[in-house]
Amino acid sequence: MTRIYEDPAEFTADAVTGFVQLYPELVRPVTGGVVRRRRPAEPKVAIVCGGGSGHYPAFMGYVGPGFADGAVIGNIFTSPSTAQAYSVARAANSGKGVIFAYGNYAGDVMNFGLAGDRLEAEGVPARQMIVTDDVASAPELEKRRGIAGDFMIFKIISAASEKGLDLDEVMAVGTKANQRTFTLGLGFSGCTFPGAEEPLFTVPKGMMGLGLGVHGEPGLEDVPSLRASELADLLVTKLLAERPEGAEDRVAAIVNGLGATKYEELYGLWGYIAPLLREAGLRIVAPEVGELITSLDMGGVSLTLTWLDDELEELWTAPCRSSAFTRGSLDAGGGADVVSVDDEDEADYGITITPGDADSQAVAQVVLAGLVAAQSAIHDAEAHLGELDAVAGDGDHGRGMVRGLDHAVTAANQAVEQHAGAAGLLAAAGDAWAEYAGGTSGVLWGAGLRAFGAVLGDQGDVSDEQVVRACHAWLDALTELGKASVGDKTLLDSAVYFVEALEKDLSLGLVPSWQAAAVVAEEAAQRTAELSPKVGRARPLAARSIGTPDPGAVSFALCVQAVGATLANQ
Amino acid sequence: MTRIYEDPAEFTADAVTGFVQLYPELVRPVTGGVVRRRRPAEPKVAIVCGGGSGHYPAFMGYVGPGFADGAVIGNIFTSPSTAQAYSVARAANSGKGVIFAYGNYAGDVMNFGLAGDRLEAEGVPARQMIVTDDVASAPELEKRRGIAGDFMIFKIISAASEKGLDLDEVMAVGTKANQRTFTLGLGFSGCTFPGAEEPLFTVPKGMMGLGLGVHGEPGLEDVPSLRASELADLLVTKLLAERPEGAEDRVAAIVNGLGATKYEELYGLWGYIAPLLREAGLRIVAPEVGELITSLDMGGVSLTLTWLDDELEELWTAPCRSSAFTRGSLDAGGGADVVSVDDEDEADYGITITPGDADSQAVAQVVLAGLVAAQSAIHDAEAHLGELDAVAGDGDHGRGMVRGLDHAVTAANQAVEQHAGAAGLLAAAGDAWAEYAGGTSGVLWGAGLRAFGAVLGDQGDVSDEQVVRACHAWLDALTELGKASVGDKTLLDSAVYFVEALEKDLSLGLVPSWQAAAVVAEEAAQRTAELSPKVGRARPLAARSIGTPDPGAVSFALCVQAVGATLANQ
Repeated sequence: MTRIYEDPAEFTADAVTGFVQLYPELVRPVTGGVVRRRRPAEPKVAIVCGGGSGHYPAFMGYVGPGFADGAVIGNIFTSPSTAQAYSVARAANSGKGVIFAYGNYAGDVMNFGLAGDRLEAEGVPARQMIVTDDVASAPELEKRRGIAGDFMIFKIISAASEKGLDLDEVMAVGTKANQRTFTLGLGFSGCTFPGAEEPLFTVPKGMMGLGLGVHGEPGLEDVPSLRASELADLLVTKLLAERPEGAEDRVAAIVNGLGATKYEELYGLWGYIAPLLREAGLRIVAPEVGELITSLDMGGVSLTLTWLDDELEELWTAPCRSSAFTRGSLDAGGGADVVSVDDEDEADYGITITPGDADSQAVAQVVLAGLVAAQSAIHDAEAHLGELDAVAGDGDHGRGMVRGLDHAVTAANQAVEQHAGAAGLLAAAGDAWAEYAGGTSGVLWGAGLRAFGAVLGDQGDVSDEQVVRACHAWLDALTELGKASVGDKTLLDSAVYFVEALEKDLSLGLVPSWQAAAVVAEEAAQRTAELSPKVGRARPLAARSIGTPDPGAVSFALCVQAVGATLANQ
Repeated sequence: MTRIYEDPAEFTADAVTGFVQLYPELVRPVTGGVVRRRRPAEPKVAIVCGGGSGHYPAFMGYVGPGFADGAVIGNIFTSPSTAQAYSVARAANSGKGVIFAYGNYAGDVMNFGLAGDRLEAEGVPARQMIVTDDVASAPELEKRRGIAGDFMIFKIISAASEKGLDLDEVMAVGTKANQRTFTLGLGFSGCTFPGAEEPLFTVPKGMMGLGLGVHGEPGLEDVPSLRASELADLLVTKLLAERPEGAEDRVAAIVNGLGATKYEELYGLWGYIAPLLREAGLRIVAPEVGELITSLDMGGVSLTLTWLDDELEELWTAPCRSSAFTRGSLDAGGGADVVSVDDEDEADYGITITPGDADSQAVAQVVLAGLVAAQSAIHDAEAHLGELDAVAGDGDHGRGMVRGLDHAVTAANQAVEQHAGAAGLLAAAGDAWAEYAGGTSGVLWGAGLRAFGAVLGDQGDVSDEQVVRACHAWLDALTELGKASVGDKTLLDSAVYFVEALEKDLSLGLVPSWQAAAVVAEEAAQRTAELSPKVGRARPLAARSIGTPDPGAVSFALCVQAVGATLANQ
C-alpha cells in the first residue's frame, strides 16, 4: 500500500521535488520533467525517455552521463502531456536532435508523437523509439507493450548517442535492439494509488498472474503459484522460444522486481535462471537483477533477454552514471549547466485570446455552462469510472477525466475574462485538458474540443447545422489521433452513434435532438460491454474486459447528457 | 508477501547463490557468508559486518572496495552462528585484525563476541562495533537496537580502515560515529516469511507503528496515520532532540525504506524533511534516500541523522563500490584473489570424538534418546512457538529450535557412531545446534548442552547428584552468556525452577523427580506471561509481550518434559 503522501493529487510533484533536491549534481527540473544538470561536452543526440510516474527508477532515475538526457514525468501510470514532452525535449536538445524513448502505450505514442511533430515544425529533428518487449501482450512484435525492456533499450541507445552516432544511426541501433528484446513477467499482488484503500487488482490466493503489466494491470491469465525453479523454467522456456533467427549465443538479461518483490527473492530466482540460460548454450553478458522499473508496491517479477551482437554488447556494457544505475567509472560530465528555455511553470495556461464578437461571446457562455455541467457529472462518477477502468486497464480514467475537466473549466473561465468567442474558449479549454490530464483520453478530448470550436468560430451565433459539423470535426480529430475504428471499444463507440442520432433528429430542434442523442450515446456506451478492445491499454487484457463497458465511452455519454441538460435550461 | 522461493528452509542459501553468480567480480562465497573477491592491495583492518538475512542490501550488498571486507549471513532475521562469523572473519582478515560490525541484538552480540574470542585466542586481534541508533528502543544509548544507522557506521568505519587507520583508531572513529547517530522509524505493514501465509504483524487500519524494528517487529506504539509533512515533522523533531552536546551544524542523513515503501514515497518525504533540517540551521551532507536496510516486503520508513565533524564527513563521503552502493569512482580493487582457508562447507560437523567407556556410551544412548524426544516435541510445537514469538519478537523461535535440534540429533548420531561418551555426544550436539540454528537461543542451548555434558564426563555411569550438578553447570553457562536474571522473561524463568524442583525431590529418584520438575517448568513457563522482558529482542516491545508467555521458557519446558518421558521408558 502506498502510505507516504501529502495530497494524493500532488504525489508525483512531491516525489520530483524531493528527487531533484537529492541529486542536484545529476539533474535539474524543467517544466514537465528533469534533464541532466550539465550539458554534454559535445553536442549529441538527446535521449528523452518518459511515461507515467510510479515506476521509479523509470524514468527520472535514468538521467545522467552515459544514460538519458532527460525524463518526461506524467502522473501516476498516466502518459505525460504533449506540452510536457515538448518542454523536456527542448531543454535536453544539444543541437543534434531528439529521440523520444518510451514503452508502447497509446497515450504515450500520441503525446510524444505530437511533441515530435511540434519539434520538427520548429526545425528540431525528432524520432520516436517505441519499446515493444512484452511477449505476453500480443503475438505481433509491433503491438506489444513496453515493460522492463524499456531499461535495456534506453541504456543501449543512450550509449550509442554518447558515442557520437547521429539521429538515424541511433534509431537503427535502437530498432535492432528492440527487435531482439523480449520480456515475460508474473504479477503476485496489486499496488494501491496514494489515497486509495484497496489495490488496483488482486491475484487469487495460490495463483500468480502470468503476463504482468507495469501500470498495475493484472496478469493476462492466472496460473497456480510456482516454485522458484518452476518460475525460472517457465520464463526461460517462453523467452527462448522468441529467439530471433540468426541470433548469436549471447544475451543481456534483466530480472526486474515490481516493487514489493524483494532482492533476496530476485537473487534466489536468478540462481535458477542463470544455469538454464547456460545450459541453453548462451553466454550471459552483464546481467542486472533488481528494481529497474516498478509499479509502486506491486508484487511481481519479469525476465528480459536481449540477443546481443558485438555492437549491442559494447553499448549495453558501456559506462554510465545515474541516480539509479551506475556502470563502470564516469564523472558527472563536463560542460555548462543546462539553461532551460522555460524553466518555471506557474500553472498559468498561457492563454492569449483574440476576443470574439458579442454573439460568439454569448455562445461561449453556453459552452462554458456545458463544460461546468460535464465537470460536475464526471466528479460524481469518478470512482465508478475508475472501477470500470481497473477491470482491464490501470484504473485512472476517472481521475484523468476529473483532472482534465477541472483544468478545462479553469482555462475556459480565464478565456471568458478575455472576452473569448466559442473557438477561443474551446481551444483554451482543450489545450489545458490535454496538458494537465495527460493520458490517451486527455489528448483526444483536448484535440476534440479544439476541432469542435474551430467550426463554431469566434464570430456570430451558431446554427444547428454548424453544431453538427462541429461534431463531425470532433469525430475526425478523434479518429485520426486515436487511430481507432468503430467496434474497437473506445469512446468512438458511443460518440459515433451520438452524432448520427443528433443529425437524424435535428429537424426537432437542437435541444431535444441533443437530449435524444445523449440517450443513444448512453445505450451505445453500455453496449460496448459486449466488445473486445482492439487498441489502447486494455487490449492485452481483452478477454477480461468483456462484460464491462468501455470507461471512455461511458464518460463520453455522461458528458453529452450533462451538456444536454444545460442546453435545456438556457 | 514473500513469493519467490524454492524451499523456505533454503531461502537464504538460494539468495546467496544467485547473488554471488551475479557479482563474481565483487564477492566470493565462503562458509558463513561472502568476502571481497580481491584482497586489498595493502593489508588493512578487515570490516566484517553481518546479521540475519532478509535485509538486503544489508549485509552482503555492502561488500566491496571502500566498504565492507566481508558479510556474515544468518538465516532470515536470525543471528548467524559463531562458526559462521569466525569463518568469514578468517577469510576477510588481511593481517591487521578484524572488526565485527552489527546492530545491537542479543544473538548477534553473543555470536560475534564468541567468534572474536576465538580469533583472539588464535592471535588475530578482533573488536566489536555494536550499532545502537534506534532512539525508540530505549532511553539509554547502549541499550538501543541497531537499525538503519548500521549503514552509516559501517560506511564510516570501512572508509577509516581503507585509509589505513589501525584497529583501535578505527574503533575510536566508529564509537564516535555511533554516539552521534540517531534513527527513528515508522512501520506501516508487516512482512511475511517465505512459505508463510500471514504477515508477522499487522498495523491497524488508519494507524502507523512508531518505532519500527528491522526484523519484522511491529512498532512500539500505534499512532494515527500521518501525512508526509507531519511524518517529516515528527521524525525531524524527535531526532533533533537527540542532538549531542557540542555538535556542529552539519549532518549526514539517511531516509530508509523497509521494502514495500517505494522510492517515490521516500523522495516525497525527503522533500519535506530537507527543508526542516535546513530551517534548523543544519547543512546536509551527502544524504541517501532509498532501501539501505530492508525487512523483506515490510512497509515502513526511517530517518537517520549523524552529527558530523571534519573527520566523519570525509569518511562518510569517501568513494566506495559495492553491489548496492557506489559513491565516487573506484575500481574493483587490486591485489590477488582472496584464498579462503575453508572454502567449502560440506555440512559436515567436523566431529572428532575421544571414545567414552562402555558405561558412558550407555549414558550417551539415553541422552540421544532424550534429544530425539525433544526434537519430536519441538517439531510438533513449531508453529505455536512461532506465534508466541511473533507477539513481540520476530516469530522465528519455533523454526530456530527445530533447526537446532535437527542438527543436534544428526551430530549426536555421528558421535554415537564414533563411540562417544556422554560428554563427547553433548559437545557435538551443542556445537551443531549453535552453529546451524543461529540466534540467541541457539547459542544458549549449544553452550548449555556442552556445559551439561562436561559434568557427566566420558567415563563411567552417572549418579543422580551428577545430573543435578550438570544442571547447575548448564544454568551457569546460560546466565553468564545470556546476561539475564530471573524475572527478565527468558528461558531462565523456567529453567531455574526446574533445577530447584529437581534438586528438592531427588530423594524420590531421578525419573520421578525429573518428571515432577518438568511440570514445575511448564507452570513456570506459563507464569512468564505476567513478566515484562528486560533483555533480548522482545524488550523494546515489552508492553506488548505482557499476557503472552516467553517462547524460550515454553520450549524449554517442552524439552524437559520430553526428556522426562524418555527417562521413564528406559
